[in-house]
Order: sequence, then structure tokens, then C-alpha cells
Amino acid sequence: MDTSIDKQNMKRAFDYALLSLERNGGPFGCVICDSENNIIGKGHNMVTIHNDPTQHAEIVAIRDACHYNNNFDLSGCTLYTSCEPCPMCLGAIYWAKINKIYYCNTRTDAKNIGFDDEFIYEEIKKPIEERAVKMNKIDLEDGLVAFNLWSSKNDKISY
Amino acid sequence: MDTSIDKQNMKRAFDYALLSLERNGGPFGCVICDSENNIIGKGHNMVTIHNDPTQHAEIVAIRDACHYNNNFDLSGCTLYTSCEPCPMCLGAIYWAKINKIYYCNTRTDAKNIGFDDEFIYEEIKKPIEERAVKMNKIDLEDGLVAFNLWSSKNDKISY
Repeated sequence: MDTSIDKQNMKRAFDYALLSLERNGGPFGCVICDSENNIIGKGHNMVTIHNDPTQHAEIVAIRDACHYNNNFDLSGCTLYTSCEPCPMCLGAIYWAKINKIYYCNTRTDAKNIGFDDEFIYEEIKKPIEERAVKMNKIDLEDGLVAFNLWSSKNDKISY
Repeated sequence: MDTSIDKQNMKRAFDYALLSLERNGGPFGCVICDSENNIIGKGHNMVTIHNDPTQHAEIVAIRDACHYNNNFDLSGCTLYTSCEPCPMCLGAIYWAKINKIYYCNTRTDAKNIGFDDEFIYEEIKKPIEERAVKMNKIDLEDGLVAFNLWSSKNDKISY
């Protein structure tokens, strides 16, 4: 159910997409609101601006919101993104514990202008040995030491 | 086919996982090598250290390598990660155009110590309407303006 507030927030996400184009970045923007509809994070694509393939609009906005909140947990927040998130960004949204996503353009729209999120969605579904990126397992004798140390650590900060 | 050099690089990834534990971060480490086996990126999990849910070891290492190379494209590079990448990191690996991945611990090992990558893998496979995170589409009248501007932009930097 999209309210007028949701549409307004989506327009803000598009303002950032348009700003990104002016700055020679990719055409994607995002804002994140807390449960009281305050915008606590915003961002646009910065891949080519910062030479960083991870700086999609959603990742930039999540980092901005977490920095603002001084917390890695965005439970209760809503993310407004101009385009359906790619698997990288969707993963980040789950790790950030964001509860709700609004999007406008679809992954098919993105594919039509040369951004092949669809390909990555298909790759992630595949078993490791069938992926385009070769994935090899190396077994080390003490390969579980770090995980065991984590398990037995009493003062760990879980996330 | 893992050579002794690959095992050595994997051990370096684990050195970072152990360093992360000392610094109160999650037990994950990563290094990235160029085609001549030079380590050009490294990192460990920084989620709780920097209050940033996107700072998994692989993302930190990708950003480090791109910064080092001053390029968002890591074609020809190999990534060594102490644990099978989560969907967020796998997405980032595809966007960075990394060619090969070596991993040691599996997503099942990660699940056993409380990191539920498996859940996110399952979620990403689902149709939008069946996911745990609610995803709603908002249609805006001028929703394709940014994409159309991108398409017709002559001086765009593709990525």
C-alpha cells in the first residue's frame, strides 16, 4: 500500500538518481527512512565517481544511515530505491535488517539500459560448480580455528 | 587446482580473519591478487568496528583493491576468502568482474556459528512477493526519465 508519503520519498530517491547523472554517476538513487518517516540515509550510485563497484545507491544510503544512527542495525527502517535492488544490494538490505523496500524501475528496465542485475540473480541461484565465476574450495588443516575462536568468545559483538 | 601459492594466499586471508577477532570484528578475512599474484587488496570484517553492515571482508578487500588500482574493474584478479561469500559479497564480486574465487569455510560452517548466509541465498531465489522483506512497487509517471537520460547520454562512463 503506497501512501502519498511513500510516493514523496520515492521522488526523493529519484532526485538523487538525477543528481547522480549530473555528477556522471549511474542513474540510481535511494533514501532510507526510520519508523517515523525521517530520512536518515540517502545516496546515489558512485561506482565511477569513487572507482568503487560496491557503491550502488542502496549501499551508499545504508552506510549513510548507519553512520547517522551509529548502529549497524536498521531494523524498523524503510528503503526507497529508484530501481529494484541487485543481489548485492538486496543482501546488504537483509544484513542491515531493513523491514520494507519500495522500488520503481525493475531489474528488466535496468537490463534494457545495460545493467545486467538479472544475470547476477541467475548466477547466484546456481550451484557453485556451474557459475561463470570459478569457485574453488581450499581446505586448510586449521581452517576452522577462526570460527571456533568466535564461538567460544565471551565478549563478542554479535551482528 | 590449488597450488601452493593459492594455499599461501588463503593463509593470508585467515591472518586477517584472526586479526579481525583481536579487533572484535567478525571472523572473516580476504585478500585479492592481480594476475601476477601480487596482493592488491586485503580486508577483514568491519561490521561492528565501523557500524557498517556492508563491511564484510570481501567488500572491504574489493574496495581496497579498487582504490589501489584506481579502477572499478578488477578483471583478471583472484579473490581468496576465508569463507564462501554471502550473496551481497558474491554480487560485489560479479560487479567487480573478478575472475576466480578461492574459499575455505562453507556457508554451512558459517551458519553453524550464527551467520545465516543460507537464509539470504534462499530469500534471493524467491519471487519478490514471497520474500521476508516486503517489497512494493511504486509507479511514478516520470519513472523512466533517469534511465532514458542515461541511455541518451553521450559522455557516460559505462560500468
